Amino acid sequence: MTGRDGGAALAPVGNSPVVILVRPQLAENIGTAARAMANGGLFHLRLVAPRDGWPAEKAYRASSGAHAILDHATVHASVAEAVADLHRVFATCPRPRHIVIPVLTARGAAAELREICARDLRAGVLFGPERAGLDNDDMAAADTLVRFPLNPAFLSLNLAQAVLVVAYEWWLAADATAPRRLMTNETHVATKAELENFLGHLIAELDASGFLRNAPKRPGMVRNIRHLFERGEVTEQELRTLHGIVTELARGRRSRGRDEGG
Amino acid sequence: MTGRDGGAALAPVGNSPVVILVRPQLAENIGTAARAMANGGLFHLRLVAPRDGWPAEKAYRASSGAHAILDHATVHASVAEAVADLHRVFATCPRPRHIVIPVLTARGAAAELREICARDLRAGVLFGPERAGLDNDDMAAADTLVRFPLNPAFLSLNLAQAVLVVAYEWWLAADATAPRRLMTNETHVATKAELENFLGHLIAELDASGFLRNAPKRPGMVRNIRHLFERGEVTEQELRTLHGIVTELARGRRSRGRDEGG
Repeated sequence: MTGRDGGAALAPVGNSPVVILVRPQLAENIGTAARAMANGGLFHLRLVAPRDGWPAEKAYRASSGAHAILDHATVHASVAEAVADLHRVFATCPRPRHIVIPVLTARGAAAELREICARDLRAGVLFGPERAGLDNDDMAAADTLVRFPLNPAFLSLNLAQAVLVVAYEWWLAADATAPRRLMTNETHVATKAELENFLGHLIAELDASGFLRNAPKRPGMVRNIRHLFERGEVTEQELRTLHGIVTELARGRRSRGRDEGG
Repeated sequence: MTGRDGGAALAPVGNSPVVILVRPQLAENIGTAARAMANGGLFHLRLVAPRDGWPAEKAYRASSGAHAILDHATVHASVAEAVADLHRVFATCPRPRHIVIPVLTARGAAAELREICARDLRAGVLFGPERAGLDNDDMAAADTLVRFPLNPAFLSLNLAQAVLVVAYEWWLAADATAPRRLMTNETHVATKAELENFLGHLIAELDASGFLRNAPKRPGMVRNIRHLFERGEVTEQELRTLHGIVTELARGRRSRGRDEGG
């Protein structure tokens, strides 16, 4: 599940939200968060009072090459300083809080972040420290809460995973990949006429072999065979293979039978 | 961003897909994958030839309490063994492959998995080893490919993150109406073991007939034939028909050749 993608090409694409890690404890987690940002096309990283200091070699090692993001990260003494130039601030938080604030799912947040960025406003998303999460003062800097719809029996999400969900949804909010398609590479899905041609070939050989000799059952059997091949979006190349299979198996009946026949 | 949720309550909820980690290298990654499964309400874990053996204390330590998932994990010698009782097998793969196979986004896959499980079929999702990913033989066990729409400039996704994306989408898809389903009426989708049995029959006959005599091309040809039949959710009844077709066409080679042979 990995790829050895060079991170050299990483650069901001358009106006994208800032990821703000609040008092992160482990430098490794800053690196894995940067990697998750890169996965989703996010680039701008701000660190509020990182416990282990900054820059940190361990962050670079854990980033799978997302170095450009770490190179451009800025360090801030407080959340207030880190969000000062932003127009909108979202806070991620897995738990209910006793505050009055709009709450979005990660998916809803991504749509709203896209809309905010399209208006040339600057947005940021706060992520709390590994164990404690954001405190009430941190939350006071946010105008919107992001909650991940996840199994309520097991909400424990590490920092990089939380960043990944937000980055993934950000990427998908602009992605136009069809939810389902057939990968055919160089070949093409066969036309119905091509499929029909193969089915004619197959059925002729099945008639010749006696497989369809039960006359009352023949129409149903032919229909079932047809449905089987209709279903899978057979490609041209596969049809050639199928023609070859049927020809070869049936040819044996004529030419090889003399040598192998019982 | 974390929560201290006890994992004690973790248990399977309804019929949910099996996560199959193929040759995972680090025990920690098995633990973090289990944690990601728990986040999205997945429970069933199978391990194919884990490099560091099983059970592994490091996996438990890395799982943030998702112990019940690890306790119930099963170990398998091969992908074929791990998928034998499943009806549908998805493979996660970040890269294009030269095979013909339906490709779903993680979101599309989640919707389809919900629909498969609602029909009481058993589904699994294959995740490859940390660096190399799934190889061509692994992929041949799959009928559907899952690709994550992510930044093409940075596709590197660690194992737990890949599992998290699938688990997160599985969780979110709970309310989604199925966009696609297969009407099978009285018959049932064949399990992978039943399909494997037919493929073995077909390939043995193709070997006997000489169709696969080109040794260097044989593995690729076998893979292509396999993918063709993996794809369409072949039913038990159709498999019986296919067995009959292959037997009949090939039998001609032996018994009828004497009469008709040219």
